[in-house]
Amino acid sequence: MSILTDMGKRAKEAAVTLSIMPTLRKNDMLHHAANALLAEQDAVLAANIEDVQAAKQAGIKGAFIDRLTLNEERIAQMADALRQVAALPDPVGQVLSMQTLDNGLMVGKKRVPMGVIGIIFEARPNVTADAFGLCLKAGSAVILRGGKEARNTNKAVVDIFRKALEEKGFLADCVQMVLDSSRETANEMMRLNGYLDVLIPRGGAGLIQSVVQNSTVPVIQTGVGNCHIYVDESADLDMAVRIVCNAKTQRPGVCNACESLLIHESLQDTFLPKVMQVLQEKHVEVRGDAAICQKVAGAVAASDEDWATEYTDLILSARIVKDLDEAIAHIRKYSTGHSEAIVTENYTNAQRFLNEVDAAAVYVNASTRFTDGGAFGFGAEIGISTQKLHARGPMGLTELTTTKYIIYGSGQIRE
Amino acid sequence: MSILTDMGKRAKEAAVTLSIMPTLRKNDMLHHAANALLAEQDAVLAANIEDVQAAKQAGIKGAFIDRLTLNEERIAQMADALRQVAALPDPVGQVLSMQTLDNGLMVGKKRVPMGVIGIIFEARPNVTADAFGLCLKAGSAVILRGGKEARNTNKAVVDIFRKALEEKGFLADCVQMVLDSSRETANEMMRLNGYLDVLIPRGGAGLIQSVVQNSTVPVIQTGVGNCHIYVDESADLDMAVRIVCNAKTQRPGVCNACESLLIHESLQDTFLPKVMQVLQEKHVEVRGDAAICQKVAGAVAASDEDWATEYTDLILSARIVKDLDEAIAHIRKYSTGHSEAIVTENYTNAQRFLNEVDAAAVYVNASTRFTDGGAFGFGAEIGISTQKLHARGPMGLTELTTTKYIIYGSGQIRE
Repeated sequence: MSILTDMGKRAKEAAVTLSIMPTLRKNDMLHHAANALLAEQDAVLAANIEDVQAAKQAGIKGAFIDRLTLNEERIAQMADALRQVAALPDPVGQVLSMQTLDNGLMVGKKRVPMGVIGIIFEARPNVTADAFGLCLKAGSAVILRGGKEARNTNKAVVDIFRKALEEKGFLADCVQMVLDSSRETANEMMRLNGYLDVLIPRGGAGLIQSVVQNSTVPVIQTGVGNCHIYVDESADLDMAVRIVCNAKTQRPGVCNACESLLIHESLQDTFLPKVMQVLQEKHVEVRGDAAICQKVAGAVAASDEDWATEYTDLILSARIVKDLDEAIAHIRKYSTGHSEAIVTENYTNAQRFLNEVDAAAVYVNASTRFTDGGAFGFGAEIGISTQKLHARGPMGLTELTTTKYIIYGSGQIRE
Repeated sequence: MSILTDMGKRAKEAAVTLSIMPTLRKNDMLHHAANALLAEQDAVLAANIEDVQAAKQAGIKGAFIDRLTLNEERIAQMADALRQVAALPDPVGQVLSMQTLDNGLMVGKKRVPMGVIGIIFEARPNVTADAFGLCLKAGSAVILRGGKEARNTNKAVVDIFRKALEEKGFLADCVQMVLDSSRETANEMMRLNGYLDVLIPRGGAGLIQSVVQNSTVPVIQTGVGNCHIYVDESADLDMAVRIVCNAKTQRPGVCNACESLLIHESLQDTFLPKVMQVLQEKHVEVRGDAAICQKVAGAVAASDEDWATEYTDLILSARIVKDLDEAIAHIRKYSTGHSEAIVTENYTNAQRFLNEVDAAAVYVNASTRFTDGGAFGFGAEIGISTQKLHARGPMGLTELTTTKYIIYGSGQIRE
């Protein structure tokens, strides 16, 4: 039996015990895990220093190192996140509907745990704690595979959780970490049908594509956001400037940031200079079509690749369109189905945009930056689904569960 | 551009038009398609005769030929099915929730069409009409790939629908049929990411496994049912006999038929002879464990493979278990997650079975044969999902849709 099959088997056994675990015990467990993480943070910080030093020696650069690095404050945030999950309502056991058929059968649809969830992620060690907490509360065991650069940190965190689980009478295998970072092991995890009920990749486009291409386990595709804002002829121009600047610059590295701006042709001498002035103050590089390049000093010509790119940086592609139809057609061609917005005062155009643009979240007169579990009031989030199956948009606890039909009979047979 | 990429592109264009099509026009279209099918049934029947003769010449046997064969009555049923879909409520456009956040954003969750649905099926030509009707009503374009034995029949049916679509101002590409039956084409269809939003295989275990193993498009796994009935110590024995016989013999070839019987050890001299007498009258072959083989004349020893087999035939595996725990453990090991039942008068055992058995449908005191869209009141069904993602159990119109978040703002930006 391979290491992964063995992990899968043990996860399934843990999942059985978790599936019928009362909410109060799960909540108590989450608080205990938070306490244990704080109490034993020295071990985590020591492991993290090893990882960070090794990464620096390997020549890895700034933002990656920042994501990899833990400190007391970040560990406190990880513990807090576990307590926040404990405070959320438990979706498991909710009966979504119950009807009595003509033959007297009572057919109910009940929310139940997924079983075993696999999560493949990159270098952020906080995902280890988040994923453990959300999966435990949702009644599922989890098999994690973190980036190799965070190996020591992840192992230290998971060891603390596994010990904490046992201290509270849970099976340690409610959480397991795949420490082998070989491609073979990753591929085996993606093909662990019969053990893994779902696989969620969290990370960059490369990781997500690799999982989508290689996985035979059902996948929830998360994250890439080439988000557009279309500023319509009738837009409130000051509002449009505020929304575009917020969506582009408030946190440019995230998936719900704006990457592409479409402007109605009537606004070339009004809105365009206004928004460009503010964007340039924020050091945003603009890549535009011919009309933009002609009007905007410093703008460079956008290639076809630019229209399709999620920069996650202070870069914006921009195009003049002749009307809403052209804007929608452009979005249809280049959208990754994450978040798309229109700024308009025209009622029909607002409704048409909401109806005709196919994305997880479509906005009228608001920044795309709101697409996340926290902002939508889900309390926690395991990622943002950009696929249409199972979950679309921010995924909270509910999206980590499935349903089953429960049928109460009194001897009914099929005629 | 390959044939399939071209079909995918045309399907996406058709899907855009369908996604905003009013319900009344979709219903009118379904009635028109039903009328066209009846009016032009001679062409379908002629094509079907070709297919049936070719299949017979290729040495194909009875049940397959029966499934392949159409006649006036079956065409009338196909037309009726389209009218029934027209009569169902339209799930598209339903707003599942709408809440106002503290910042004034109104966030709604709206049911929307999936986009483009792929369906790969075997030799039943009626699937062509069912799938077309359900997908159209659910607002999605569909690309079908039927079994090669039904090629002429499927082409004739789809040609009628495509002509009917155009007559009503719909794009013909709302339905397309892949006529090339090569493995390469099947594999290309399974990897048509970016065009297909979901792929649903309908057919035997081999087809389903092939799709699960090879597809990079999200798949909904349907169908295989190794369904168990556990007869508990406290069961009403006459009721148990009725339920077991119904679940095994009323229609043995379907996925919700019972394949395996688990009997509490205290019932070896009471229920066991009773049920075996009735099963043998119905010509059911029994494959049992040692205890069963000792008590039941004609029973043969079950292999480990038997416990895992969906016979879809008048064969039943049977085992004596010492208690509910052993029954649940057996089901956990061999279940395909379709439908599982307990017959009991014990309240706690009934509730434990419902909670602890992990399947799409779990029953107390009723036949497993009720797991289908018709019996559950969905009015139509595209298959029965045995996976946990997106849909579980019978899938009706609703399960062919997805959701999106629609957000009404008034200038909100993220702080």
